[in-house]
Amino acid sequence: MDLTATTQHLASAAADLVRLVPGKLIDPVLSGVLLTADAHGVVLGANDRERTARVSRGALVHTEGRVLVPAKPLAETLRALTQPQVRLVVEGSRLAIRADGARFALPLLDVDLHPGAPESAVGGSTVSGSQFAAALATVATTASRDEALPIFTGVRLRSEGDRLVLRATDRYRMAIASVPWSADTEIDLMVPAALLAEVGKQVAHIDRVTLQATENHLALAWSDTVVTTAVLDGSFLSETKLALSDADTHIEADADTLTAATRRVALYSDPRGVVQLEAGDTELRLRATDHQAGEAEEPVKATITGGRTSPSFQSRYLLDALRPFAGTRVRLAIQPGMRATVLTAVDPGEVDLRYILMPMLPPKV
Amino acid sequence: MDLTATTQHLASAAADLVRLVPGKLIDPVLSGVLLTADAHGVVLGANDRERTARVSRGALVHTEGRVLVPAKPLAETLRALTQPQVRLVVEGSRLAIRADGARFALPLLDVDLHPGAPESAVGGSTVSGSQFAAALATVATTASRDEALPIFTGVRLRSEGDRLVLRATDRYRMAIASVPWSADTEIDLMVPAALLAEVGKQVAHIDRVTLQATENHLALAWSDTVVTTAVLDGSFLSETKLALSDADTHIEADADTLTAATRRVALYSDPRGVVQLEAGDTELRLRATDHQAGEAEEPVKATITGGRTSPSFQSRYLLDALRPFAGTRVRLAIQPGMRATVLTAVDPGEVDLRYILMPMLPPKV
Repeated sequence: MDLTATTQHLASAAADLVRLVPGKLIDPVLSGVLLTADAHGVVLGANDRERTARVSRGALVHTEGRVLVPAKPLAETLRALTQPQVRLVVEGSRLAIRADGARFALPLLDVDLHPGAPESAVGGSTVSGSQFAAALATVATTASRDEALPIFTGVRLRSEGDRLVLRATDRYRMAIASVPWSADTEIDLMVPAALLAEVGKQVAHIDRVTLQATENHLALAWSDTVVTTAVLDGSFLSETKLALSDADTHIEADADTLTAATRRVALYSDPRGVVQLEAGDTELRLRATDHQAGEAEEPVKATITGGRTSPSFQSRYLLDALRPFAGTRVRLAIQPGMRATVLTAVDPGEVDLRYILMPMLPPKV
Repeated sequence: MDLTATTQHLASAAADLVRLVPGKLIDPVLSGVLLTADAHGVVLGANDRERTARVSRGALVHTEGRVLVPAKPLAETLRALTQPQVRLVVEGSRLAIRADGARFALPLLDVDLHPGAPESAVGGSTVSGSQFAAALATVATTASRDEALPIFTGVRLRSEGDRLVLRATDRYRMAIASVPWSADTEIDLMVPAALLAEVGKQVAHIDRVTLQATENHLALAWSDTVVTTAVLDGSFLSETKLALSDADTHIEADADTLTAATRRVALYSDPRGVVQLEAGDTELRLRATDHQAGEAEEPVKATITGGRTSPSFQSRYLLDALRPFAGTRVRLAIQPGMRATVLTAVDPGEVDLRYILMPMLPPKV
């Protein structure tokens, strides 16, 4: 193999690939990048047997070929280069990365041991990249990171007519977003949230993302990239019914003001981190109190209708819940008793988001 | 006590104080801030029995007084406030921090248990704040952080005529800087590097810093701030003689180019992290090689005189050594054998810096 390419293009391909398939520490082959150079350019492929990815880039190919090298060192070397052009050329048992006078040489791994990169994309239904990214920014980060309970580490993707609904919970809160969907096919599956979070970052400025589900896999494709992942068993969550219709108190407030006040008052919260929202006539009073830390209260202007139910929340979950509504007004629908509060935007856009937060017992005075 | 002040002024005073005297975790009193309000304004004081600090600020004092409250919660609350004015007022067993409708209340600690804040500054010799900060940025970070060997955690400050010499080593490298000094008094003592690093950050834009040494303490004063610290026993290091006159190879190169090349080549270094500098006629070749990682070499244009001694260094220490010379040309004076290399600026400014680096055995091929 011998090719010349724009350093920046190749560096972004290698970086995207490593983030999509970080590889298995125990197996150097499954942490490798499979480089395939032919007349069309170069394809970078990865496959750790659970996830696969392919990223293609234009290149001036002098000699076609197919080699396997450690992925992270390749990505780090390409990222560190400041020279505009780079040459990748096999020299004996090494892949040399040459730029001006510099030479970096990676050991070749056994290409026959690698399970191969995915095919390029075929059909499927589509979503807007920026809308998918906005929904995932909240939903994928709401999933649990506790690998001991895998079903809470996933995002459920389900088509409902012309909307794609994304849903995740870690048991203490749940985020439900929906985005417009081309509706050619129906899907209903649970996908690892960590991968979707990374996909969200990469598609934020992409026009269309294609989703194609097979029995045990989901393929996502955009521009020059294809990713596939094994799905999680989501049957446990698929029948979840949420009774959220009993709200007796409705509050509308500026999300940024509420966030700033929550941050300040939370400095005085008890070891559980609890902040109470006391509904008044024209303002919400945030309160926290702790035997050692002292006590705090701060008013936030709000439009309050209905009852005077005053729930308490763990402050960091409340801050997470407010984040997707930054810069806008947020509506809180509060149910009496120890039941969930639902946060929605006062003026929702194309991405419809409901954030459901479980209350805590109020702070003891 | 009852006073009104500009939030930003009080917040910066509390933040500076907490960074200078982080306090003792085990003793809430020694982690407290002593607030003294009188006709002149308010003084924030801290004293953990090893370090003391006082920071004064203007304030409109309604009622004079003296209280002790937890320092970090006060600093965090003041930092989080967006209201321009803040009122501090004793209410029962609390110090209330009031801003618009918000109220934050900290418990009062027993002021009689506190060892007291330092007096305001008297005389002493002076250095320029920006020069002192520039010297400390390199010297204080070269000291060891290993508390098990306290003498390597200090910076030795020694007046030599009209220069103040700052010196620190962690045994693998040594930084020696000197700055102009008003030479009214002579000092020679060893001061904890961690405190000096923080002082360096706070005086970067200050005109003059006053240093006054007593038998076991050093006091540093600038604008509205006074800090004192117990000194370390530096007698062990005070007689260190450095024989650095046998350099046979002199190299001049652009520090940024050398830094960037070192970063890239270091990706291929052995588990010790070693990079070799091979002196040629018109270029320095950086090399690294590792059985697993592969190998790298990159040329850097340089002016080379004398021999062809080609030392090897731990890459992160070489990067640390190059950092203070960023944006300028650096000179390396290399001694043959396993002896130190000295880095200096080709065009030194008012702050004179020598960085001394011990070599490593070259990488095995």
